[in-house]
Amino acid sequence: MEIREMRPADWPQVFSFFSAIVDEGRTYAYPEGLDAEGARRLWESPGRVVVAVDGDVVLGSAGMGPNRPGRGAHVATASFMVAPAARGRGVGRALGKHVVAWARSAGYRGIQFNAVVETNTAAVRLWQALGFHVVGTVPGAFRHAEDGYVGLHVMYLDLVDVSDGV
Amino acid sequence: MEIREMRPADWPQVFSFFSAIVDEGRTYAYPEGLDAEGARRLWESPGRVVVAVDGDVVLGSAGMGPNRPGRGAHVATASFMVAPAARGRGVGRALGKHVVAWARSAGYRGIQFNAVVETNTAAVRLWQALGFHVVGTVPGAFRHAEDGYVGLHVMYLDLVDVSDGV
Repeated sequence: MEIREMRPADWPQVFSFFSAIVDEGRTYAYPEGLDAEGARRLWESPGRVVVAVDGDVVLGSAGMGPNRPGRGAHVATASFMVAPAARGRGVGRALGKHVVAWARSAGYRGIQFNAVVETNTAAVRLWQALGFHVVGTVPGAFRHAEDGYVGLHVMYLDLVDVSDGV
Repeated sequence: MEIREMRPADWPQVFSFFSAIVDEGRTYAYPEGLDAEGARRLWESPGRVVVAVDGDVVLGSAGMGPNRPGRGAHVATASFMVAPAARGRGVGRALGKHVVAWARSAGYRGIQFNAVVETNTAAVRLWQALGFHVVGTVPGAFRHAEDGYVGLHVMYLDLVDVSDGV
């Protein structure tokens, strides 16, 4: 598995699992029915997008950038998707570690995830394993396709304290 | 004081205090140096904007709409600005009560504020007085002009439980 910048030729594969994941309705509060161009604009909106690939097969993707402009631009954010066919192979973990390393090297003071669905326990546990903690949970903020209204975690990793401690 | 939908003729006054407040660097992580058109697009982006007026004088403004698209669109969000010259007259409270009533009547299940600067104690107390609570605080997420890195509160008002209890 290699992680590299997304290229235009990757997008059809990314859009395929992007659509499948949004349609599942378990993890992302994104607009419904986005076409390939609209989805690409949304996915690229944080600023930088990478893909995890195995040869020509795109296994997953992550978008990353500042969480806010101006006086909030020292905190990064990121979003992750792993192709359903590639689950359980450590793709999410590899992308997460990549994002943490990127944010640290780019000088961000922390990484904030704004909306982690609380029932997505695989993701919550993975981010916790990478050092993130749950700052708080907005109750019922996500309308889950099977579970109804569930909470959205705000999660945060402090990169300053980590660096200071080393 | 009257609260009504913003009209094009109101914008120069709103932009004047919008710019002053963003330049103060105490409350909003917005892009710096926005021109009138860029600021208007940002301020109108939640969907609906009202102004608090006293005759021809605009005292404050609030923007409101869904906090997220798709499976998050049942939670509202809002932003508020009060003209520095009109502070201490209850304009923020009147706008806040207007937004809560609007969200309830529009069928939202709650209202989320994503980024309330923790040192903006007047705002934090006001929202608490209106029933909001602090869900969590992202440490150091706001670079305050005088105080340095301070936290951003996520605040939430549950409209479903309130309605159920009545």
